[in-house]
Formats: sequence, structure tokens, C-alpha cells
Amino acid sequence: MSEGLFRRVLVIGTGLMGTSTALALHRSGAEVLLEDLDAGNLRVAVSLGAGTPFSGASPDPEPDLVVVGVPPAVLGNVVADALERFPTSPVTDVGSVKAAALADVERLAPDAVERYVGSHPMAGSEQSGPLAARADIFDGRAWAITPHPRSRDDAIAVVEQLARTCGAFPVRLSPSEHDEAVALVSHVPQVAASVVAGLLTTAAEGHLMLAGQGIRDVTRIAAGDPKLWTQILSANATPVARLLHEAASDLQRFALTLEKLEPEELRDALERGGTGVRRLPGKHGARQESFTSIPVLLQDQPGELARLFADVGGAGVNIEDVRMDHSPGTPAGLVELAVHDDAVPALLAALERHGWTVHG
Amino acid sequence: MSEGLFRRVLVIGTGLMGTSTALALHRSGAEVLLEDLDAGNLRVAVSLGAGTPFSGASPDPEPDLVVVGVPPAVLGNVVADALERFPTSPVTDVGSVKAAALADVERLAPDAVERYVGSHPMAGSEQSGPLAARADIFDGRAWAITPHPRSRDDAIAVVEQLARTCGAFPVRLSPSEHDEAVALVSHVPQVAASVVAGLLTTAAEGHLMLAGQGIRDVTRIAAGDPKLWTQILSANATPVARLLHEAASDLQRFALTLEKLEPEELRDALERGGTGVRRLPGKHGARQESFTSIPVLLQDQPGELARLFADVGGAGVNIEDVRMDHSPGTPAGLVELAVHDDAVPALLAALERHGWTVHG
Repeated sequence: MSEGLFRRVLVIGTGLMGTSTALALHRSGAEVLLEDLDAGNLRVAVSLGAGTPFSGASPDPEPDLVVVGVPPAVLGNVVADALERFPTSPVTDVGSVKAAALADVERLAPDAVERYVGSHPMAGSEQSGPLAARADIFDGRAWAITPHPRSRDDAIAVVEQLARTCGAFPVRLSPSEHDEAVALVSHVPQVAASVVAGLLTTAAEGHLMLAGQGIRDVTRIAAGDPKLWTQILSANATPVARLLHEAASDLQRFALTLEKLEPEELRDALERGGTGVRRLPGKHGARQESFTSIPVLLQDQPGELARLFADVGGAGVNIEDVRMDHSPGTPAGLVELAVHDDAVPALLAALERHGWTVHG
Repeated sequence: MSEGLFRRVLVIGTGLMGTSTALALHRSGAEVLLEDLDAGNLRVAVSLGAGTPFSGASPDPEPDLVVVGVPPAVLGNVVADALERFPTSPVTDVGSVKAAALADVERLAPDAVERYVGSHPMAGSEQSGPLAARADIFDGRAWAITPHPRSRDDAIAVVEQLARTCGAFPVRLSPSEHDEAVALVSHVPQVAASVVAGLLTTAAEGHLMLAGQGIRDVTRIAAGDPKLWTQILSANATPVARLLHEAASDLQRFALTLEKLEPEELRDALERGGTGVRRLPGKHGARQESFTSIPVLLQDQPGELARLFADVGGAGVNIEDVRMDHSPGTPAGLVELAVHDDAVPALLAALERHGWTVHG
């Protein structure tokens, strides 16, 4: 491996994550070797152009990296086996739970564990298997890198390079911190989606006709593979169960508040949800993009706002948000256009050119 | 009103739903009159081109239809008032809860209630207010029509015509049936999203970096207006609270099963979610589209699947689903391409032209 590029990588396990990683590595120009006990999956991955089947004979030179993408229940075993088969290669995995796998590797391969650095790309789909794989599913996503105290620095660097080569950005956490985090941002939402979707099983068909986009979004991930999710959740049982108890009592409390018709408390609970969802970072982990609001005065005529959008859009300025200012004392026709900081000059020029009044 | 087209409609309340309805009616060629106590909202709706402000003087002729889009807490009052002000017009509303509003109208306008038919377009957004309004938000969505026993047939027909004019398809239910249905497909998902998002409020910022698309989808609607949702949930408290208790005990049971590590039961619960989500109807309420699966044999060479997709796509055939058949006894390289029934001849012709083997 030179200048951050992989020459040869072995991917063990050609499910959704393994095959997607292989496709992304292949796209970067690496030679990708593929291995899977499931001959059907392997054949599909090869058919997709993800790489070539690994013969089983020791490659020369050894891979720059071995990536293990197998189900949680066998993850530690397969990683330990890879450390033994390839005595100089760094080994990572792309599994969803990190502490349990690390404990297995420490037990099974105590002398080689320093070449192991766990990782977890925060991408995926309710689908599974190599047919759902795509080279671009990691683009702009976080990729957790979970070194343990004995991980070698060069192995950590190689795994961070894997994340970047696949288009993701590396986020470093300890294995147990990672497991706490995914319990919250992945495993509990998965169970909540399943529980809400489960309520639909006994509903009258006519009632389901009223389903809109909201419930579709809330329940989409409930279509995930139950066998895989049973393994993921079981491997992270303690943090997930703790949060599920918390969510259950929050729901229970909400129901009781509703029965007692206490609007203030209902509103507080709903506002708490809004606060939570606004904490989710933007693309590429950006905390908050920097916008400027420009207040524009509208005349009291039909079609004014449509005309404003046309004038601004025609100048190539992208409006990120639009708000009415309802503060007392501000004119009724005041609209706030939020744009990226660097689009402000173009916006002001377009407004002036078309005769709009910028307020204040 | 002739040949199913509206000449003149009054829309009372220019929030998200009222303004979107007005925009869709305007698009159909109707004259749309707008009324709102909030002068700012009214001005924005007029600016967007949704209609013209109603002077307050009785229009001549009376509107073909009055559409009320105001918050649940005042809905019954505003509908009853409209029935009194316009003694021959049918009146509907686009509110989220139907039985409570009907009870208010029956009490306040007992002699005019036969001109009232409630309705509820199953469209919306986590946003609110006229700035988020669009003429096309109803396209292909269900629009619940909720007549009561005394509703006049011609009033029901006019409201169903409103749904169709706005691009939606009408679904008729009784008011209480509607409220049971939306408790399940809208209100409980809303609370579940809020509860999951609420757990994020106390999370470490580094943990939130791992958020992927799953939690974003599950929690998106939690960004909705807490004040509006407090009113909606309060107006439908009994059915919602019952289902929330059920969801809370499902979550609790899931947590206990996880703590006891009972994989069979975990899997059953997750499978139940998958069954539920697959019950949601497709676009335009279609229960299940009719596909045919064509089994194609792949050669064991890199790039075979990519070549297959290119050959099929090049022939203009749209693949709806792709599956590998893993049944014992079937060849390893067998891929099932699912296409719309009417695309089967074109698919078979394309496969033959490019030398693919259709199996069995």
C-alpha cells in the first residue's frame, strides 16, 4: 500500500456490506479477492464485478488489508481465523456490534489481536445480500473506527484509509462507546420501527388505506432481515435493553398524559422529540451549516412570493429556508430568505435588480 | 358547479393544508377565495397565488364548497359558523380528527349539519404554515371522506370531487372509523418518533455522529409542530392512548426478551414488524402490483450481472425486483428478474437477443 491506495484487499463475506465494500475498493483500482462459504452469494458478488474468488492459496504478497463482513454470531471466529491465515495483514470487520467481537478475538487470537481494528460503516439498507450492494452506499457517511488499547497505529491508519477510500469519513470511538452509540442511533430505532409496524398486522385493510408518508418512513427499516437483526440485537443486548425500557416508560407516560388530557405535558414531550431530531448532524457530519437570513418586504398582491422565488432562482441562488417573521411590530409582508453565507452577495444583487425591498 | 369542476370555493384557514388545497383548486381553474384571522398567513397564501382575500361580503353566487382548514381545537366552531354564513353551500374540513369536530357541529348547527361532510387528505409534512404549501402534495394520496348518517348525498359527492380535483383518491369511512385508523397509521407513529427522538436529547455529540438514514427516517416527523400535534392527539385521545399502551408493553416485552437472550422470540417480534410493514398499500392505494418473475441463468464470470442489467436496461425494460433463488436443487447462478406483467414479452425478447438462458 503506497500513497493511501490499496493494491490488494481480501473481503471475507459477500453480503450487503462486504460486497459494497468490495465494489468501492474495486472502483478505487484495488485488486479485490472475495471469499464466502455461500457459493451463491460469492457468485453474485463476482457477477457484479466486485472482485475475483480467492483461491485459498496464500497470496503473494499478503493483502494490504483483510475485511470481514459476516454475521455477528460468527464474527469473532472469522476475524481470529483471518489473523492466523495472514500473519502480516491488518484485519478489520464491518459488523454492527464491536465489544463482543473484540472479546472473542482477544480470547481466540491473543498474540495477533494488535493487527485487528474493528470498524462499522454507518450505511446499509432494509435489504440484505449482495444483490442490494452498491459501490456508493458509503459516500458521505460516517464509518466508525474502533481501535482497542493494543491496536497498532499502522493498522488503525489502514482502516481509516479504507473508510476514506470508500467515500466515508472515519469517526474514532472505543468499542464499548460505539456499542452504546449504535444502541441509541440504530438498534432502538430498529426495534421501535418493528413495534409500530407490528401494530399494523391486526389492522383492518380499509384503515391501512389511510397510510401516508409518515408511517412509511417510521416503519421502513422494519422490513430488515429478522435473522440478522436478532443476532445484532443479541450481541448488544445490555445497552439496547436499557434504552428500550426507557422508551417503553416514555410511551407509557405519554399514554397516561393523554388520558388525563394534560396539554402542557403533551407539548413538552413533543418538544423534546423536536429538540432530539434537530441534534442529528447534517451530511458529512457537519454540525450546522452557516446561513444568513435576508428579510424581504412583499407587496400585498397575488403572486408576489411566486415572483420572488422566480427572480431569486433565475439568478442561480439556492434558498435553504423561508420563514415569515411574526414578531410584533414587524411588517406583515416580511419574508426571511435563508441562504448560504457565500450566496448573500448574489442574492442581494438579484433582489436589487428585480426591485425588491430588503428590510432593515 | 358543472361537469365536476368547481367555479368558486372559499377556503377558511391558510395554513399548510388550507393553502395547499387552495393552490390545487386554483390549478384546476376554480376561483378561490381565502380567509384567515392571521393576516400574515393570509398574505403569504395570496402571495403564493393560492387565491384572493375574501371581502367578507356574501359572494353571489354562494361558493360551490367551503373548505375549513383550522386547528382541531376550533374546528367544530368554524365549521358551524360557515354553515350559518353560507346557507346553501356544502362545507367540509381538512382536519386530522373527525368525531370530535362532528359532535361540535351537531351541537352548534343541528339544522345545517346535513350540508357538512368531514374529510382528511392523507398528506402533509413535518413543516407547517402556508410557506410549506404545494399544489401537488395530494397527488396519488388517499383523502378520507367521512360522512355522518345525516350527510346529504350531493354534499358527499362534492367533497369526493374535491379530493379528485386535488389529485387524491377518496376513501370513505365513518368519522369514528377514521379516527381509529389515523390513531394507528398517523398518531401513534408520531408519538413513537417523538419518543425515539427524545432519547437523543441527552446523547453525547460524538455518538450522534454515527446516525445513519434509519434513525433519520424513524424520527423525521418528530420535527412537526408540537402545538398542533398536542391538539390533534388530544382530540383523538382514547384510541391513541389505547394503542400507545399496547406499543409500550410490546417494547417492554422486547427489552425483557433481549435481557433473557431468547433469540426465537426476538425473531418472532421482528418478523411481526416485517409482516406489518408489507401490509402498507402501494401508490394510489394499489394493494399489490402484478409482477412476473423470469429466472435467468448466469455464467460464472466477473461482470455477468452488470452485463445482464445493461442488456435489459438497454431494451427499456424496468426491473422491479431481483432475487437469487437459494432453494436446494436450483442452479447456483439463477437470478429471478421481476417485471410488470406487460413487460414480459420485451424482457424475453431482450434476453434472447443477447444470448441469455431463461431457466425452466
